[in-house]
Amino acid sequence: MSIATYPIKRVAPPSHDVVGSLERGCVDHGIDPLAHRLADLRAFLASDLDEVDRAIAAVGLNGQTVAEASVRHLLSQDGKRIRPICVALASYVGRGFTDAARTYAVAVELVHNATLLHDDVVDLGVRRRGAEAARMIYGNAASIFGGDWLLVEALRDIQRAGNFEVLGRMLDVVREMVIAESLQLERRGKFDTTVNEYFQIIEGKTASLFRWAMFAGAVAGGVSDVARDALVDYGRKVGVAFQMVDDVLDVAGDAETTGKTLLADLAEGKMTYPMLRALERRPDLAPMLQIACAGDDVSPELGARIVMVLRSCGVVEECLELSRRLCDEAVAALDVVPDGVAKTALIAVARATPERRR
Amino acid sequence: MSIATYPIKRVAPPSHDVVGSLERGCVDHGIDPLAHRLADLRAFLASDLDEVDRAIAAVGLNGQTVAEASVRHLLSQDGKRIRPICVALASYVGRGFTDAARTYAVAVELVHNATLLHDDVVDLGVRRRGAEAARMIYGNAASIFGGDWLLVEALRDIQRAGNFEVLGRMLDVVREMVIAESLQLERRGKFDTTVNEYFQIIEGKTASLFRWAMFAGAVAGGVSDVARDALVDYGRKVGVAFQMVDDVLDVAGDAETTGKTLLADLAEGKMTYPMLRALERRPDLAPMLQIACAGDDVSPELGARIVMVLRSCGVVEECLELSRRLCDEAVAALDVVPDGVAKTALIAVARATPERRR
Repeated sequence: MSIATYPIKRVAPPSHDVVGSLERGCVDHGIDPLAHRLADLRAFLASDLDEVDRAIAAVGLNGQTVAEASVRHLLSQDGKRIRPICVALASYVGRGFTDAARTYAVAVELVHNATLLHDDVVDLGVRRRGAEAARMIYGNAASIFGGDWLLVEALRDIQRAGNFEVLGRMLDVVREMVIAESLQLERRGKFDTTVNEYFQIIEGKTASLFRWAMFAGAVAGGVSDVARDALVDYGRKVGVAFQMVDDVLDVAGDAETTGKTLLADLAEGKMTYPMLRALERRPDLAPMLQIACAGDDVSPELGARIVMVLRSCGVVEECLELSRRLCDEAVAALDVVPDGVAKTALIAVARATPERRR
Repeated sequence: MSIATYPIKRVAPPSHDVVGSLERGCVDHGIDPLAHRLADLRAFLASDLDEVDRAIAAVGLNGQTVAEASVRHLLSQDGKRIRPICVALASYVGRGFTDAARTYAVAVELVHNATLLHDDVVDLGVRRRGAEAARMIYGNAASIFGGDWLLVEALRDIQRAGNFEVLGRMLDVVREMVIAESLQLERRGKFDTTVNEYFQIIEGKTASLFRWAMFAGAVAGGVSDVARDALVDYGRKVGVAFQMVDDVLDVAGDAETTGKTLLADLAEGKMTYPMLRALERRPDLAPMLQIACAGDDVSPELGARIVMVLRSCGVVEECLELSRRLCDEAVAALDVVPDGVAKTALIAVARATPERRR
């Protein structure tokens, strides 16, 4: 059941250059390996992702309200499109990027963006994707209604694709995401947050949508149940790893590459894995972190001290190690998935995820 | 195809006392006729609405997050339940309050409440249903996530009931509601709002959900297409009339009966029908209204002057007259609906709507 046995719609046969590049793995230095892999994948999936981009660019275009204006503002900023890429790759394990797969690829990006609009209101976020957050331009109310509108837009598209289970699972996922965001909100600034709670939060807020992307792509591609379950397992593990790296970048990233302020999560009181582990090892960090969480901004001096302690006590390496292990498990889960370019690409994405720099 | 030809589930045959009471119409003085009619209906629909109430009381009960706590706070305050009653009556035009009808009756109330949670954040609402607004207790973020959670909870229930069209129409309705709310937000404090825009807003924010309630109830009850379309038309007209009376109560209601502050809409800058009509007739009102919209609260003196002008220039009567005409049309739409207790009850609800006092 290799990809070659299925008719591939609208996409040129995989170029060996691209596959070769995907297989080279992550030996890059000085550039972002995930960005590199995703760029390779964009070349492979060019016409598919063009369709996705065009569909996303058209969302809310005829709208007259500030809700839709805030949506357009957010959608006009470049995203990584990793979730649509997950849908596309899962579909290529089967018969390829069908109309349903395209619908799901667009919808998963829209749902992700809907949560960003609400999160920025909740977190009082000022910037997003290197630009002003929508709420800074159109106001909180517009972002609240904008998030509502965008979520429903995505659900309508999924509903029209006509698969009850795919829609039902998305509703389950949105529920999980909201509960996880709410839990994160409550744990804000609470140093007694457990590592278990941390994983509960990131499974819900991030991994759940990766899981859905793989499921929806697999269903659209007509993948066997066994391979589909494996792809969902892959999605969950890569999703958790993806979020862990996000948390590492907040304490050890390069602000210019990430486009985010260092310690932004900390300033919002978010208890991330590196932070929780560091508190176990260096209880003397607590007073510094308390001050950082309490203020609107972390002062440069305090920030530098916190970052130094975090980096020196080994938590950054520990967190990356764990995310690498998860990605190894994600790759192992693909054992039952038929060989082919889609599987090769999925392996490359998993390998690149712990090494990403933005 | 009268209701008597269908097996009625779980409900005692309609009592003639209740029907008689419903038919007596709206000659009551000093009490709220709609509340009276709805109380009669509650007696008729007692076991159905008990089931709805029990299901609503259980929503979010096992939840651990502030989002669910804010939902429970709102749901624990009594609502009129007029939307679930619409679902139930539409179902009784057919074979009665089936499991699907009960699911839809609960869901329509949950969607309504989800919008209230977001609206209170957007409008900075302080009180709701005579109690503190959820956001005053659990914060804005909890109400944002709470609204998201509740919306998705309702959609999941509808999805599980298994009718794709009922679910698709609800998604369309939520979209309409969000766009209408967003439009209302933009027109806030703008005296050049047209009457057309006003109707566009209330059709979207209120009538759309009444329409859906009738549609879903009719589908659950297996009502014929012709009768179903008539019920939807009824729902739209009664929904618009219901909202117009709401707007009248804001300028001419009795604060003790409504449980709302007089001129609360005006203080939020909402342009209602009585306000827009009054501005046409009495342009000298504009400066007073400008001041009322600009402040956080309308001072008692200014409020009394505005209310006096509004009542004296006939807009209250005009608005009620229009809502009566709409309800007459709603009743006329029921011509094609088979006679029976459900139709009698729907007529009574329509007749009572323009006379309601809270």
